[in-house]
Amino acid sequence: MTSSAPATNRAYRRLSVEERRSQLLRAALTLFAHRAPEDVSLDDVAETAGVSRPLVYRYFPGGKQQLYEAALRSSADALVLCFAEPPTGPPTERLGRVLDRYLVFVDEHDAGFSALMRGGSVAETSRTSAIVDGVRRAAAEQILVHLGVPDPGPRLRMMVRTWIAAVEAASLIWLDEDKRPPVGELRDWLVDHLIALLAATAASDGQTADVVRQLLALESPSGPVGSLGRRVLPLVGEAGHLL
Amino acid sequence: MTSSAPATNRAYRRLSVEERRSQLLRAALTLFAHRAPEDVSLDDVAETAGVSRPLVYRYFPGGKQQLYEAALRSSADALVLCFAEPPTGPPTERLGRVLDRYLVFVDEHDAGFSALMRGGSVAETSRTSAIVDGVRRAAAEQILVHLGVPDPGPRLRMMVRTWIAAVEAASLIWLDEDKRPPVGELRDWLVDHLIALLAATAASDGQTADVVRQLLALESPSGPVGSLGRRVLPLVGEAGHLL
Repeated sequence: MTSSAPATNRAYRRLSVEERRSQLLRAALTLFAHRAPEDVSLDDVAETAGVSRPLVYRYFPGGKQQLYEAALRSSADALVLCFAEPPTGPPTERLGRVLDRYLVFVDEHDAGFSALMRGGSVAETSRTSAIVDGVRRAAAEQILVHLGVPDPGPRLRMMVRTWIAAVEAASLIWLDEDKRPPVGELRDWLVDHLIALLAATAASDGQTADVVRQLLALESPSGPVGSLGRRVLPLVGEAGHLL
Repeated sequence: MTSSAPATNRAYRRLSVEERRSQLLRAALTLFAHRAPEDVSLDDVAETAGVSRPLVYRYFPGGKQQLYEAALRSSADALVLCFAEPPTGPPTERLGRVLDRYLVFVDEHDAGFSALMRGGSVAETSRTSAIVDGVRRAAAEQILVHLGVPDPGPRLRMMVRTWIAAVEAASLIWLDEDKRPPVGELRDWLVDHLIALLAATAASDGQTADVVRQLLALESPSGPVGSLGRRVLPLVGEAGHLL
């Protein structure tokens, strides 16, 4: 391992400390994205980066756990960037675009995403849980921005956080089921889910009802709200004996 | 510790192996229900059970981890029993009764439930994750029984599992928020959530639409479906420009 060819050694020297660190992190990210942490060794990371195992340790003295946490933090930062969306246009279309980016992330980090979210991994610590919770918090804050609620009450907060948990669960199930249904159908269903949940919550919470009225005014007839409404109305007709 | 008084030793002998094991497990359950696993020591268990630490080790040679897993398994069995409900009467009323029992369980296992479901605990292993997953599977199976679907398609399966994740998330948020709103309001909102999600899923999945039609026929006008429908209709009126 340490008896690398001179050419490789020269290549080593050409990278700055920061560049080398990034290169190792990229190798770790590639591996941790598609495998559970227990299925990735430091030798794998060294091999993927084309460097020696001692070099990996020089940059990450905490070994695999440190690399895993650095990779996780880097993924979390990338994911939070996916959530950013200008607060203009029909809200459900904004939501659709964010979900598209989020689902690309899930697709590209499949086995790693599953291992992380399922828990029970040896690499899971209170630090990794805190990173994941930070992503959830960022997602909730973004949704509240688009809902136009600077000061959400407990029911609205609970609704938003519950829907985020539902999206996570749906993502894991989607990965389990070999990425079926097609990602566009999953995205549309998650949008429908939030519309339905907003309506159900508005039914018993005044603040949510106000939010829903404001959002409805921004939607277009060809968008998801109109489409869901037209598809649900026949069912409401069959519930006539209950209304 | 080992120099117990003769009276205590006689008391020890009076319990059978099975009785002693149950007694230790009850003590562990009491402690693990209201504290994170890292905040419970074997000395705490011994003290709560009124026995010596070596005696706890005799019954649970694997120490705290073994006790934690045994307590978890016992709680999981109790929780699965909560899900059993005769498949008669309006489905939303059956669901309400199951949720009432489930929420009593959450209330009685608050800190332990939070620590377990949040992950990142040192006591969490692939075995503890498997126990929790078993409870989720049992919950999903029960819901499908009440939906009257022996052979659910992927969309219906995903809907059920997603709602279960939403219930878990709502339970954790409820514990975080000092058990507010009142448990009855939380139960009603979780029922509304499932009704809304069924309607939204029926809008794009034929099997779910068939299930919803069958369920609607079993509901009563004074029940949750009628109540939710009457409260949502004014909002639908405000969405007239979209329909």
